[in-house]
Amino acid sequence: MRFSEALIPTLKEDPAEAEVVSHRLMMRAGMIRKLAAGIYDLLPLGLRVIRKVENIVRQEMNAAGCQEVFLPSVQPAELWQESGRWDQYGPELLRLRDRHNREFCYGPTAEEVITELVRGTVRSYRQLPLNLYQIQTKFRDEIRPRFGLMRCREFGMKDAYSFDADEPGAEASYRVMYDTYSRIFARCGLRFRAVEADTGAIGGSFSHEFMVLANTGEDAIAACESCQYAANIEKAEIGLRDEPEPFTGEADAPERVPTPGRRTIEEVTSFLDVKPDRLIKTLILTTPEGTVAALVRGDHDLAAAKLKLFLGVEWVEMADPETIQRITGAPVGFAGPVGMAEKIRIVADNVLRGIGPAVVGGNETDVHIANVLLGRDFTPDDFADIREAQKGDACPRCEGNMTVMRGIEVGHVFKLGTKYSKAMGATFLDENGHELPLVMGCYGIGIGRTAAAAIEQNHDDKGIIWPVPLAPYEVLLLSINPGDSKISEASDRLMAELEGLGIEVLYDDRDERPGVKFNDADLLGIPFRITVGARNLEQGLVEIKRRNETELKKVPIDQVVKMVADMVTEAKAV
Amino acid sequence: MRFSEALIPTLKEDPAEAEVVSHRLMMRAGMIRKLAAGIYDLLPLGLRVIRKVENIVRQEMNAAGCQEVFLPSVQPAELWQESGRWDQYGPELLRLRDRHNREFCYGPTAEEVITELVRGTVRSYRQLPLNLYQIQTKFRDEIRPRFGLMRCREFGMKDAYSFDADEPGAEASYRVMYDTYSRIFARCGLRFRAVEADTGAIGGSFSHEFMVLANTGEDAIAACESCQYAANIEKAEIGLRDEPEPFTGEADAPERVPTPGRRTIEEVTSFLDVKPDRLIKTLILTTPEGTVAALVRGDHDLAAAKLKLFLGVEWVEMADPETIQRITGAPVGFAGPVGMAEKIRIVADNVLRGIGPAVVGGNETDVHIANVLLGRDFTPDDFADIREAQKGDACPRCEGNMTVMRGIEVGHVFKLGTKYSKAMGATFLDENGHELPLVMGCYGIGIGRTAAAAIEQNHDDKGIIWPVPLAPYEVLLLSINPGDSKISEASDRLMAELEGLGIEVLYDDRDERPGVKFNDADLLGIPFRITVGARNLEQGLVEIKRRNETELKKVPIDQVVKMVADMVTEAKAV
Repeated sequence: MRFSEALIPTLKEDPAEAEVVSHRLMMRAGMIRKLAAGIYDLLPLGLRVIRKVENIVRQEMNAAGCQEVFLPSVQPAELWQESGRWDQYGPELLRLRDRHNREFCYGPTAEEVITELVRGTVRSYRQLPLNLYQIQTKFRDEIRPRFGLMRCREFGMKDAYSFDADEPGAEASYRVMYDTYSRIFARCGLRFRAVEADTGAIGGSFSHEFMVLANTGEDAIAACESCQYAANIEKAEIGLRDEPEPFTGEADAPERVPTPGRRTIEEVTSFLDVKPDRLIKTLILTTPEGTVAALVRGDHDLAAAKLKLFLGVEWVEMADPETIQRITGAPVGFAGPVGMAEKIRIVADNVLRGIGPAVVGGNETDVHIANVLLGRDFTPDDFADIREAQKGDACPRCEGNMTVMRGIEVGHVFKLGTKYSKAMGATFLDENGHELPLVMGCYGIGIGRTAAAAIEQNHDDKGIIWPVPLAPYEVLLLSINPGDSKISEASDRLMAELEGLGIEVLYDDRDERPGVKFNDADLLGIPFRITVGARNLEQGLVEIKRRNETELKKVPIDQVVKMVADMVTEAKAV
Repeated sequence: MRFSEALIPTLKEDPAEAEVVSHRLMMRAGMIRKLAAGIYDLLPLGLRVIRKVENIVRQEMNAAGCQEVFLPSVQPAELWQESGRWDQYGPELLRLRDRHNREFCYGPTAEEVITELVRGTVRSYRQLPLNLYQIQTKFRDEIRPRFGLMRCREFGMKDAYSFDADEPGAEASYRVMYDTYSRIFARCGLRFRAVEADTGAIGGSFSHEFMVLANTGEDAIAACESCQYAANIEKAEIGLRDEPEPFTGEADAPERVPTPGRRTIEEVTSFLDVKPDRLIKTLILTTPEGTVAALVRGDHDLAAAKLKLFLGVEWVEMADPETIQRITGAPVGFAGPVGMAEKIRIVADNVLRGIGPAVVGGNETDVHIANVLLGRDFTPDDFADIREAQKGDACPRCEGNMTVMRGIEVGHVFKLGTKYSKAMGATFLDENGHELPLVMGCYGIGIGRTAAAAIEQNHDDKGIIWPVPLAPYEVLLLSINPGDSKISEASDRLMAELEGLGIEVLYDDRDERPGVKFNDADLLGIPFRITVGARNLEQGLVEIKRRNETELKKVPIDQVVKMVADMVTEAKAV
């Protein structure tokens, strides 16, 4: 494609509305254009990236034995009433009425439609397992759409639905999708982790979020450096390898010390000149089953989700100031396990077994207690893994260490069970002629979100740095002064030869200053740049540069095509 | 793909709701499934056909220098208000409101959105010409959706929009699209004609409908057998080659004859024992400029659209009985050019110059007049080409003959001019720095409609007969008794070898009776069938059959792969 003929309306300035880097760079690179809040035109360059993601998804889904379908976006309300979601779904569901005043919605997902399709076409266990997917436009009427393609209202999504005869079958289907998703994101050239997600009522490890790793990601993840284990930091388990022995040394008697106005860990440790790991934080929480005190070390954070899981309750919340006053006898900031006004259940983090003499809150305004010894001065009701994981923590699955990273959710695999099949009567006859509900799973990938996440992961202050498999073009052929016939002839020839090898080339033949063209080259982020200029050309040379490297190489013009073609091929191999 | 694992829910019975053959066969072949009125699931087999059409469209659009974009389906009302269409468009426009109560529609087409995109990104004549297209889901809330994918509410459409600096540029863009559409439908393997369409206020030949020819088509087309000329039969011009000389022979005096109760051509000619071509039909019509009598030969039909064009009026309608009574002095059925009660303008079809003595209506109940001679007994005010074309008529463009065929509209190319660019302020600066409105064209192809039209054109009473380029699979490998290990091994090997050559194979490995499998093979209409059965296999043979031929050939199993691959390649070459 010749740049001079292409619709690539690059912007020099950052658009004011763009809050995140992918949004800003997609706008500036002329990939997308806002039509309305959360609704974007995909321009030629943006669409090419989207198609790359879609094609990788399609190839891998087909290779996994899934069958592609295409379901309507306008879905009858009746089906959503059958599943119960018509009333459950809030205003994110875009509801509409046709000319006959019948109710429909613009599908945000397709569980109902696919279940209707399968209940009408599948009768027997011999037709199972079945996995149907589509790549289709969805609509979710987000209250505050933002971040460009990262959180928009109209968006492209791959959604797949598996149907099995029983739980083991459903688990096998789930595993196939897990592996397929891993291949998809690897083939996209992205660094990612599959993260254990909350399974709600289902239990087991049958929900994973696929996270593209990026410092700008919304989610914090604890992930093992040695094995596949990863989880949202709020839920990540911590291995027992480093669990301390109970403290058996000597300690002075407890001592009440005045800490006027010092409430936070920083204030207290700095005032008393002790390290945070010599302090025990006491958090008062309310749960459906009463008030609880949770103890964690001063340099640790409570993981409320883990405490909730340990207690086996539906929710856990920080207690309000009145409750804290009543329970501890002091205002917020001075709670401690020794001498509370009311006796409540105390859950201590595993690591506190070995903490030794420590500082705790005094349950009295402006007072802490030093030299408090667990087992001597107070005894927790339980020890449990209730803190947030940190870099260096032991992996719960292997001998490795955990690290903490940030990520962007781009895919989700989920075992649905029989929720929809039971509600909508999607059954089959098993080998004995018994009618049973189908066991389902659902599997989504945000197509535009994957493209945006690729930019969040791969960019610098000049622009995008596309992974080769997702790049809108593989090679940028930059012709300096294309008015010079020697340069344009040499460039035209390179263009033809590269395209002859199936390489996707954007040929910057514009009559623009070199500075403008080099800036656009960095902004667009095409992986390989070939520069044709007068001085090099006289010596039979052109310049090549990878977008993700700083080095410029001069190579003979008659070798550059093969060199670049080899580099492209190598970069796309997984 | 193995049939046993595929979701191809074929039906034995015709679905009651399906009125046309393509609807019936797509349902029976398990290609589509109705979700709601005019809203269909595309099942795996149906989607494969749709993708074939889309890929041909995409390749040819790209080859023509068009750039693919993807625009939102949810379009803000404001844009439609700018163009004026928000109020003009009736209930076919699906209007909706988001959670903030802002008005949108589900786009039935994208003139407004594309014009908004281009006015925001195109500034200079140097960015022109520009042709942007998308393949996207549209919604038109038809009052009575029917015929499956032929006239549904949610449907896939390729819509393209060209932008030029001036009229000659726009005409050149139009011509490129005309040629591109011709290549697209040729590559689809369809017999089609580009038909001149009504251009309304624009004039010139800047609107063509592309019609797939099929006996079941809704539209009648007159088309030259020698050149490219074709037009809707109501508008088709007729060449002057066969125009008769004025009659100069002798004739008896006119004679009033009683024709009691005989009003129609058939009744009068049979009663008087004359041929229809000896009779002149007199039609009384009202127009904005008064009442007119149109005369055509008894075996011809008036083409009202051509009369309208000749008269240069906005509309032409059959007069009501009261007007006819007033003008002719007789009730409907007895009008004639001789002795009308009121004098009105008489327009005679060209062919009547040479008709000689003829029968006409007597302007009196139950009376006709025989031996009426044009020029002697009455004189028309004008001669003009006002009849519908018939098979054998002279082509208006060449020396060829016309024929009459039926067709289904699958594409439309249209020169829009500056309607949208003026209304929405889409301008550019020309070489002299003058701000001018962009000159636009729009170009649509109904993707699902093309697939349905392919079936209307290519089927028999057993099922579909796919043109190879659109077939969901190219080869059906039918294994008789796959429980026999020799058969299944041979079939498996053929499957692997065919797929190794890039051939798309549906492998009927089902444990079903041969009759069921042969019936499904005919129903699905896959172009090449290879049958592996025990008796032939013992002799090292398999059977091949083309779906569009009756002949069965036995060929050595070690030659069949190459033979079939060659046939597929040949069939896809255009």
